[in-house]
Amino acid sequence: MSDRNIRLESADKRAVEDQEVEIVERKGIGHPDSISDGIAESVSRALSNLYLDRVGKVLHYNTDETQLVAGTAAPAFGGGEVIEPIYLLIVGRATKEYDGEKIPVDSTALRAAREYLNENIPGLDVGTDIIVDVKLGEGSGDLQDVFGEETQQVPMANDTSFGVGHAPLTETEQIVLEAERALNGAAYGDDHPELGQDIKLMGKREGDVIDVTVAAAMVDKHIEDIDDYVAAVDDVREFVSELATDYTDREVNVEVNTADDYEEGSIYLTTTGTSAEQGDDGSVGRGNRANGLITPNRPMSMEATSGKNPVNHIGKIYNLLSTHIAETVVAEVDGIRDLQVRLLSQIGRPIDEPHVADAKVITDEGVTVADIEDEVVAIVDRELANVTDITRRTIEGELSTF
Amino acid sequence: MSDRNIRLESADKRAVEDQEVEIVERKGIGHPDSISDGIAESVSRALSNLYLDRVGKVLHYNTDETQLVAGTAAPAFGGGEVIEPIYLLIVGRATKEYDGEKIPVDSTALRAAREYLNENIPGLDVGTDIIVDVKLGEGSGDLQDVFGEETQQVPMANDTSFGVGHAPLTETEQIVLEAERALNGAAYGDDHPELGQDIKLMGKREGDVIDVTVAAAMVDKHIEDIDDYVAAVDDVREFVSELATDYTDREVNVEVNTADDYEEGSIYLTTTGTSAEQGDDGSVGRGNRANGLITPNRPMSMEATSGKNPVNHIGKIYNLLSTHIAETVVAEVDGIRDLQVRLLSQIGRPIDEPHVADAKVITDEGVTVADIEDEVVAIVDRELANVTDITRRTIEGELSTF
Amino acid sequence: MSDRNIRLESADKRAVEDQEVEIVERKGIGHPDSISDGIAESVSRALSNLYLDRVGKVLHYNTDETQLVAGTAAPAFGGGEVIEPIYLLIVGRATKEYDGEKIPVDSTALRAAREYLNENIPGLDVGTDIIVDVKLGEGSGDLQDVFGEETQQVPMANDTSFGVGHAPLTETEQIVLEAERALNGAAYGDDHPELGQDIKLMGKREGDVIDVTVAAAMVDKHIEDIDDYVAAVDDVREFVSELATDYTDREVNVEVNTADDYEEGSIYLTTTGTSAEQGDDGSVGRGNRANGLITPNRPMSMEATSGKNPVNHIGKIYNLLSTHIAETVVAEVDGIRDLQVRLLSQIGRPIDEPHVADAKVITDEGVTVADIEDEVVAIVDRELANVTDITRRTIEGELSTF
Amino acid sequence: MSDRNIRLESADKRAVEDQEVEIVERKGIGHPDSISDGIAESVSRALSNLYLDRVGKVLHYNTDETQLVAGTAAPAFGGGEVIEPIYLLIVGRATKEYDGEKIPVDSTALRAAREYLNENIPGLDVGTDIIVDVKLGEGSGDLQDVFGEETQQVPMANDTSFGVGHAPLTETEQIVLEAERALNGAAYGDDHPELGQDIKLMGKREGDVIDVTVAAAMVDKHIEDIDDYVAAVDDVREFVSELATDYTDREVNVEVNTADDYEEGSIYLTTTGTSAEQGDDGSVGRGNRANGLITPNRPMSMEATSGKNPVNHIGKIYNLLSTHIAETVVAEVDGIRDLQVRLLSQIGRPIDEPHVADAKVITDEGVTVADIEDEVVAIVDRELANVTDITRRTIEGELSTF
Repeated sequence: MSDRNIRLESADKRAVEDQEVEIVERKGIGHPDSISDGIAESVSRALSNLYLDRVGKVLHYNTDETQLVAGTAAPAFGGGEVIEPIYLLIVGRATKEYDGEKIPVDSTALRAAREYLNENIPGLDVGTDIIVDVKLGEGSGDLQDVFGEETQQVPMANDTSFGVGHAPLTETEQIVLEAERALNGAAYGDDHPELGQDIKLMGKREGDVIDVTVAAAMVDKHIEDIDDYVAAVDDVREFVSELATDYTDREVNVEVNTADDYEEGSIYLTTTGTSAEQGDDGSVGRGNRANGLITPNRPMSMEATSGKNPVNHIGKIYNLLSTHIAETVVAEVDGIRDLQVRLLSQIGRPIDEPHVADAKVITDEGVTVADIEDEVVAIVDRELANVTDITRRTIEGELSTF
Repeated sequence: MSDRNIRLESADKRAVEDQEVEIVERKGIGHPDSISDGIAESVSRALSNLYLDRVGKVLHYNTDETQLVAGTAAPAFGGGEVIEPIYLLIVGRATKEYDGEKIPVDSTALRAAREYLNENIPGLDVGTDIIVDVKLGEGSGDLQDVFGEETQQVPMANDTSFGVGHAPLTETEQIVLEAERALNGAAYGDDHPELGQDIKLMGKREGDVIDVTVAAAMVDKHIEDIDDYVAAVDDVREFVSELATDYTDREVNVEVNTADDYEEGSIYLTTTGTSAEQGDDGSVGRGNRANGLITPNRPMSMEATSGKNPVNHIGKIYNLLSTHIAETVVAEVDGIRDLQVRLLSQIGRPIDEPHVADAKVITDEGVTVADIEDEVVAIVDRELANVTDITRRTIEGELSTF
Repeated sequence: MSDRNIRLESADKRAVEDQEVEIVERKGIGHPDSISDGIAESVSRALSNLYLDRVGKVLHYNTDETQLVAGTAAPAFGGGEVIEPIYLLIVGRATKEYDGEKIPVDSTALRAAREYLNENIPGLDVGTDIIVDVKLGEGSGDLQDVFGEETQQVPMANDTSFGVGHAPLTETEQIVLEAERALNGAAYGDDHPELGQDIKLMGKREGDVIDVTVAAAMVDKHIEDIDDYVAAVDDVREFVSELATDYTDREVNVEVNTADDYEEGSIYLTTTGTSAEQGDDGSVGRGNRANGLITPNRPMSMEATSGKNPVNHIGKIYNLLSTHIAETVVAEVDGIRDLQVRLLSQIGRPIDEPHVADAKVITDEGVTVADIEDEVVAIVDRELANVTDITRRTIEGELSTF
Repeated sequence: MSDRNIRLESADKRAVEDQEVEIVERKGIGHPDSISDGIAESVSRALSNLYLDRVGKVLHYNTDETQLVAGTAAPAFGGGEVIEPIYLLIVGRATKEYDGEKIPVDSTALRAAREYLNENIPGLDVGTDIIVDVKLGEGSGDLQDVFGEETQQVPMANDTSFGVGHAPLTETEQIVLEAERALNGAAYGDDHPELGQDIKLMGKREGDVIDVTVAAAMVDKHIEDIDDYVAAVDDVREFVSELATDYTDREVNVEVNTADDYEEGSIYLTTTGTSAEQGDDGSVGRGNRANGLITPNRPMSMEATSGKNPVNHIGKIYNLLSTHIAETVVAEVDGIRDLQVRLLSQIGRPIDEPHVADAKVITDEGVTVADIEDEVVAIVDRELANVTDITRRTIEGELSTF
């Protein structure tokens, strides 16, 4: 056992699953905040790989400040148009020169953004519906040399920050998360081109009744009239209602596009499948946390995980790692009803030695904290030792950040 | 008593003050995220007042997406210089024309930003050290008419969102919050021009030991050499240590600029008093919550409060209101050790009728929830009825959002 | 005969062809200034057609201020790369709403720019090598209603301005103009992919000796080594030398890429075929005049012709029309060695009634001005009466502006 | 006598003063194109001085591509307001690092622009009425080392380009030039705050009748009503009419703001004194030539003189030098009625050895070209030898470029 500062205590409260009121939200991949997250993270991966390819190691960068300025559109049954394009500014720092060689960070960032958009938000014609601009400054001098080369050393924390993770997901969390993934996946999307990518789900549980409110942008060129629209809304409702039964036995009520007013012709129709086309701005780090959810019943980190350098940006690493640790512990150790893992860094210390690693557990009936303590602490210790795995998996695109 | 859906339950956990590990953070007003918040909110106030002045009511707008792109600087003992200016883009929506009259929203936003910077970050020479640009699009058509005129009606929620507030502050929270305010206030600043506005405090309490880590940007023109710098750092440490004793009897250890390495000449010296001058970007909503703190021990809303329209933007209103309710209840009702208030909206419903108002209380020993339930619910009900007070006080600048 | 103020006088000087020293320049279509011109004009055409399509008439706009900010590139034998993208800002005015209908001017402008680049500068990958941004403001209120609808009326001049045209072209002018067109045309380009579009020709004639200096950007992926490069340069020299014999019997010396220094490895190699990739900015109206040339031996207008509204922007119309008139007169009337036509407008007067139309002629030996005066004046009068033909042909893309 | 290629020939035409029709234009310092020129040149001077101050020599830069995007304003009698600010983008190249030292080119450029605006266009509140942004890229690698240090050598031409100058000015040219200077100078401005800086003069002479058309922006806060406006217009007309008598005995008719339509309330009223506030964009190099005028009766260079590096940018140097040579020759040599001097460079040759220096003279009656040839050629030769004086005087702000 290491001498890492790992603490396990009883949470001394009810598990979220057992609390009276629970709120869970997920912004789908086409939400303006998620578009910002997605581009920031795809640019980050592209830069990591560019640096590895060119100089054999990841140089200093951060691209976690993408800003999306909404456009204006005129959606119409059968097909409308974008009037003023969305403007997306990729913001961050990057090392542009190394050993006298210039590194094409700007061009690489633009390419990554374009590819991400083409793949994930196909209704946006990049260059016409959305302008992608880039401002990547040079980083702070002190940080330029932080990343050790060909070394076995664990990097030092670049900041005093913390990450927090939870497991397992509650039923409401699972419904909200999986419903968005399914709606935006081949399972639903292939047969339903009328459903845009901008889907927002809000789950609220009071006791044993779960209300799921879905806001789903419909794509005008696949919707000929109001009947088509109503049918599209109904399809979403049915799909989510059906899907929910896989995750809960509780009563689930699903409402879709509740703000619609058919009589006034006020419906959620878009030309591109995202509300970014019409007035909804977006930013990195304003939407889903690293586990894909916004969970007011659970402590969350304010850190934007997307776009940050995965080598030494401790806010990113610790959010991904604490989530990973929580999931791993729950998978490997029996008797845990709810686990929260927090990792707090101190600037300048090796990232595998957090200032404190603090786990709060709620055990199943008949299990005590003492029963599982050694096992849990050992797993936390082991995963901290493997912290650079998080970096590798992030660069390879295995980990999602929003 | 109204028929508002107000629920009070026992939190069924230990108060944060009594938990084993507590983490609290505050980003000072000169932090790049706080600069973004501060400008977003000052622009919001200026637009509210502009609309009131011109058309007698607040029209649709949101300015909650300010993006700061860091500059480059070359600080030096005795006075350095900014090399590449900071770029700040005010992003949002605003109504630019009403009844045929054009309303100068862009110019007003620029003026508000400039005045805010001049007043709060005096080391930044606006127009040279920082470029302020603006992109305020027209909002979504459906929202343009939401704000009722000369009406007694309570506005409708513009979104499904929630706010969360807490009271009272723990000792650690008070120390972190008050130390930043004092350091950036006349109490300290008048005698210490060498201290910049970019002060970040991280409080960590383990049991009865509180560690406060301060990162404080020093201003180079007031620091002649390394001795001056060391003295400046010592002054901050002493001041915070002293101040902490007003709020706690626990052991408090204060560390300032722990990442410094005097031998390598690596210190936290700036030309302008903010790290935005060198590589640290900033965004609205990435820093402090509405109560001025980042509190991983407590549920937080992801909503950016700063810059949002205070008339009907429910995310803003409910975060400010839930904080206000929690504080009010604790002030008026005896026997509460920890209170959390959550307000969840549903789009289209009057904002004084939340989908659910959910209070979780931890009582002092000898007090039961039943003892105080009626009193608490009555206060929550009363303050919900007065929800538009939050709007008024925000416009008048009485409420802080970060 | 009309009462238009048409004046014909003897130029009372030697024809340019007979002057001792003559200088002629042409910036090829890949020159940064020409890229700006080309995009400005293609955007203009697209907007004219958009307005005609949507509202049946051309509304107020001008797009004559496109600004190109150069990028950074690292060309290399066999294929290099763009490091920092070119930034192109489409600037101008446009009417964005008409009769309550929003008109997609921004999206249309972006699409036109992208199509123009794809077609004319194929080495530039739009969105990666070049960012295209747009700032089209609303025009001045007074001008919004200038363009009469369904009316036979000739528009009023929007400014006090003038245009100037010449005919026929001198031998040197023909060589410079036709050489660029041939090099950038299928005649040469199909077999020579190594030649970029950024070709600049400077012709200088002293007496009967014509020196043609060509600066021709070579495309790195088609140039494997210095020998390839030298061969490419030789091919251009031979081609231009050969082409020149079609236009003159004078001695012609052609030099290509004279600034090259093979020993120092300083050659004109590019990745994209244009110097805009590396440090050469561009603007509308800074390059070729409406006849495709820069001719210091002849009076020129400073007006940017590209991008201006062809309905009533008098600077554009009069430059195109005066060139057209000069060419028409020379084609129809015998005995003219050199003709200059100037048209001066006065703001607010119908554009077919210039303040003065002023022709200066140099006749062939044996011909007097009096011999041809009636004929010339009649043609000028006729073409002024047909002024709206210029508008129509410009919108249809028949007339080149640079 | 040097072996410079200097050629003098008879112009073999009438002097401009003796031609039947003459057109002359000047855009005043508040015209959007002139604002762009003025800022480009003031930034250029600031950078030259910055480099001299920091590294003892002028490094590579060019700032000749400033782009002004017009704003929107709502002028009103007694004082209106800017609705949307003007956006000004300083574009160019600059060396940002030398010998490991970073040089604050961006901040210096911004400061220079702000100071220029404050001094010359006082009605524009920088930061509110006009946003000043900057994009200065690194220059092309090959050019970085062109400027020799502590050397006596004359720089090499950086391009194949030419300059052209004329002397003396005609009466019409003098009137147009001096009227604008006087109107914008203390002579008139101190007593007439209602006159803005955006004054455009068009002079047209037919035979012995000179028409001067003035477009003069009036400043609304100094104009209470239409009577004030009419009086202001009358004052300008009288002033220019009176001033003209100092320069000519010909008949002079002055018209001011001819596009006004009092009945329709269409007048030339502005809030800031420049039409840039409302729809008129501007660019460097689109307005006045180096002698302050646009002269369609005379050959002109298309080169933008403002903003270019005065050390080796041959287009700038040769335009300033040819103008200086023409003026010097006319001042020192009797018997010249009209002189045109052209200087053509060849890339890579020393700038004091033009490819050809070509003077065309029209002599007074009784004087032959042979009479003055030696004297003229000697002066041209002498001034070419002193070419670096042009650089020095430009840096010191003694020479105007527009």
